[in-house]
Amino acid sequence: MTTAQLVSEIKRKQSFLCIGLDVDLNKIPEHLLKEEDPIFAFNKAIIDATHHLCVAYKPNTAFYEAYGIKGWQALEKTITYLNEKHPEIFTIADAKRGDIGNTSTMYAKAFFEDLAFDSVTVAPYMGKDSVEPFLAFENKHTIMLALTSNQGAFDFQTKTVNGKELYKQVLETSKTWNNSENLMYVVGATKAEYLADIRQIIPDSFLLVPGVGAQGGNLQDVCKYGMNGSVGLLINSSRGIIYASKDTDFAQAAAIKAEELQQQMKAELGRHS
Amino acid sequence: MTTAQLVSEIKRKQSFLCIGLDVDLNKIPEHLLKEEDPIFAFNKAIIDATHHLCVAYKPNTAFYEAYGIKGWQALEKTITYLNEKHPEIFTIADAKRGDIGNTSTMYAKAFFEDLAFDSVTVAPYMGKDSVEPFLAFENKHTIMLALTSNQGAFDFQTKTVNGKELYKQVLETSKTWNNSENLMYVVGATKAEYLADIRQIIPDSFLLVPGVGAQGGNLQDVCKYGMNGSVGLLINSSRGIIYASKDTDFAQAAAIKAEELQQQMKAELGRHS
Repeated sequence: MTTAQLVSEIKRKQSFLCIGLDVDLNKIPEHLLKEEDPIFAFNKAIIDATHHLCVAYKPNTAFYEAYGIKGWQALEKTITYLNEKHPEIFTIADAKRGDIGNTSTMYAKAFFEDLAFDSVTVAPYMGKDSVEPFLAFENKHTIMLALTSNQGAFDFQTKTVNGKELYKQVLETSKTWNNSENLMYVVGATKAEYLADIRQIIPDSFLLVPGVGAQGGNLQDVCKYGMNGSVGLLINSSRGIIYASKDTDFAQAAAIKAEELQQQMKAELGRHS
Repeated sequence: MTTAQLVSEIKRKQSFLCIGLDVDLNKIPEHLLKEEDPIFAFNKAIIDATHHLCVAYKPNTAFYEAYGIKGWQALEKTITYLNEKHPEIFTIADAKRGDIGNTSTMYAKAFFEDLAFDSVTVAPYMGKDSVEPFLAFENKHTIMLALTSNQGAFDFQTKTVNGKELYKQVLETSKTWNNSENLMYVVGATKAEYLADIRQIIPDSFLLVPGVGAQGGNLQDVCKYGMNGSVGLLINSSRGIIYASKDTDFAQAAAIKAEELQQQMKAELGRHS
């Protein structure tokens, strides 16, 4: 999917919501555990109930790998279902990968070719040659960690390197990489005030913003500091939507929560247009 | 496996060799492609031919994920085979994972419980709460990236943070984390001269050293600067061993290359004892 197509979908749906599909078998409704593939059954119900309210889905690979082969099968079924039923929806493999060049190429093949995701998240620690193999894929997007939403972000990301914080160094350096137009960035919503500085470095890039909802970020602030002329934001919510109810009404409850966010986003799009 | 057991195996085998099982179907002997599971068939032959010469095996997960479900099945068969036939051998899931707390816990379960690896590699960028969930597992080991062997290591890892290079900051900070005694570190062999400095910060920790062989590191230098009283080194070689021949004699050829390294290691152990 091209960035232009993503922007077009955001305007059509009046939403820049990404729903995180982080399925924990201890948290899904009990009646689903009788299904042959409870993880896929859960995802399918959530997708069927919310696809008109969001523009992206983001399965975090950890939640699938934890269940071994069955988990990987559920991930494969989920992305196949999305690509067949809703090809207009942007898909993110939240994998946070990164390795030396030939190995990153294998990861890129895993997520862009074998699983056919539109994008994958990567970690920057190993530098240019660990990220460029992902960037080489046409019409695929690489979403690099810049400033994450957890407490540990302050351990290294905000430390000063050559006169500026490491995450700013990461943003600036990455702009010089081959095919850097295929980069998006993860920026935690718990630090919305940092977004003004970030927009000075990467005014045009899309930002994937986790941490609205369960992690406590504020949507208005994120839009105030982070939105650009092409919207430039995907705001993720996982637990706040998919675990809105643990009962048989879980999918409808998820849709209600997703619509609340979509309505707030519609208002923000109006305010900033 | 405890660290003491690993040290004991190193002394018994006179080897601190780790063999990287990075299986690329384009590089393995053609006759194996007829097998039902060519990746596992390759790994099994390599393990059968080399297990007496090394103390660790390290499958890099990228090479398995690139083949989807079949790849994940081959990884599962490989670790099960190792744990059943050679429980004395240290196993490393080279996965370079790292995410927010509850998600890192899912990764830890995937590699320590579902797949029953002895250790997993992780990336430090997200800080303390992204790594501590791995450290909480008893008799399991978390091998954190410090200074990698690729060119991109110079993009961020060697940049100066608070008066010292980022990788040194990573080493120092990580010592304060809960259960930090379960940490080992990845340090590239292409920078052997840095090992003296690294040993000042973490004198007792095990180092996983990639980059000997195909990536050009020097074994003598690594031992000179990196070995400690408990050896404290695992030296990895992947392509130099497993792709020594592309013919039907590939496993024997791998054993010859592994034995060359083991003999050099035996000499180093003698020199430093």
